[in-house]
Amino acid sequence: MVTALETLIEALKRLPGVGQKSAQRMAYHLLQHDRDGAARLSLALRAAAEQIGHCRRCHTFSETEICSICADVSRDPALLCVVESPADQAALERTNSYRGYYFVLLGRVSPLDGVGTAQIGAAELLLRAAETGVAEVILACSFTAEGEATAHVLGEALRSRGIRATRLARGVPVGSELEYVDLGTIAHALVDRR
Amino acid sequence: MVTALETLIEALKRLPGVGQKSAQRMAYHLLQHDRDGAARLSLALRAAAEQIGHCRRCHTFSETEICSICADVSRDPALLCVVESPADQAALERTNSYRGYYFVLLGRVSPLDGVGTAQIGAAELLLRAAETGVAEVILACSFTAEGEATAHVLGEALRSRGIRATRLARGVPVGSELEYVDLGTIAHALVDRR
Repeated sequence: MVTALETLIEALKRLPGVGQKSAQRMAYHLLQHDRDGAARLSLALRAAAEQIGHCRRCHTFSETEICSICADVSRDPALLCVVESPADQAALERTNSYRGYYFVLLGRVSPLDGVGTAQIGAAELLLRAAETGVAEVILACSFTAEGEATAHVLGEALRSRGIRATRLARGVPVGSELEYVDLGTIAHALVDRR
Repeated sequence: MVTALETLIEALKRLPGVGQKSAQRMAYHLLQHDRDGAARLSLALRAAAEQIGHCRRCHTFSETEICSICADVSRDPALLCVVESPADQAALERTNSYRGYYFVLLGRVSPLDGVGTAQIGAAELLLRAAETGVAEVILACSFTAEGEATAHVLGEALRSRGIRATRLARGVPVGSELEYVDLGTIAHALVDRR
């Protein structure tokens, strides 16, 4: 017989970065010290799953049909930034140095996992980028193999439609000592020097 | 306005070892890739909080009035092992080298936090230990300051009632090289040599 405790531990293991030991510790902690926290988490999970959908315009998480960023008319309509996930979008927002709009792919091209351009909403992106006023699409995909492939495919499609597509600068991270930066990064920083 | 996403992140931060960044990652992961996992976790948390209470006899987590270990008549009634938490009990059970019964304190004496012998069920333990058939109480509290204090207080009370109270052996952990073991542990291992 599977007990409620075992069911809870299994459910906690679905969280990213949580294995058997952490899940056990979390379950014991909630039951022994924080039953109120367990009740809150249960309600918050249900509310989030029910209320959070996707913005019809940029595909990020939103409780409304159009998210607060897309609805903000004070932003610069000439800039459209393409990111892989709402988490990446949140990171860009925290920099306070971007004032345009976003398009969230919710994935990246990965042929091995059966993820093609259709799954990441490339067609919707092309429609969005073709709207009047968009002067530049910034491809802020990750600098991983899959992120690069995604940026390449989308960049080609955008440029073939006469839309300017740029990529985030590659270079030495702020605060790093050159000695410890990997050679690929240094090579890129040399080529893109300014 | 607090959004459902923010509420979820706050609720996830109540889990032990989960800070702002991990909570964000968990929330984004559940919403983007595992909405089924979020629903399961929500149900499991509610079911656990509703169904899991404490064994009337040993105070461990149990969905029944008497837990499966206390109800197991094949165990040795002469041994009673006192542990601080159900997690400690689970660790002892996994060793497969203890066949007696348990008493779970659900805490340890900590005057600074207002936890005295009453809060950890010392009176119930003394009643339980006085039952006919109990020959020895093993105090398996942690070897921390608070665990030692708890073991000391309980040991005194048990011995004053003529009940034999023992403590887990202290010594060098299995697999360790002496060079890296702390001095206090080596000193204890020397004193308790056999």
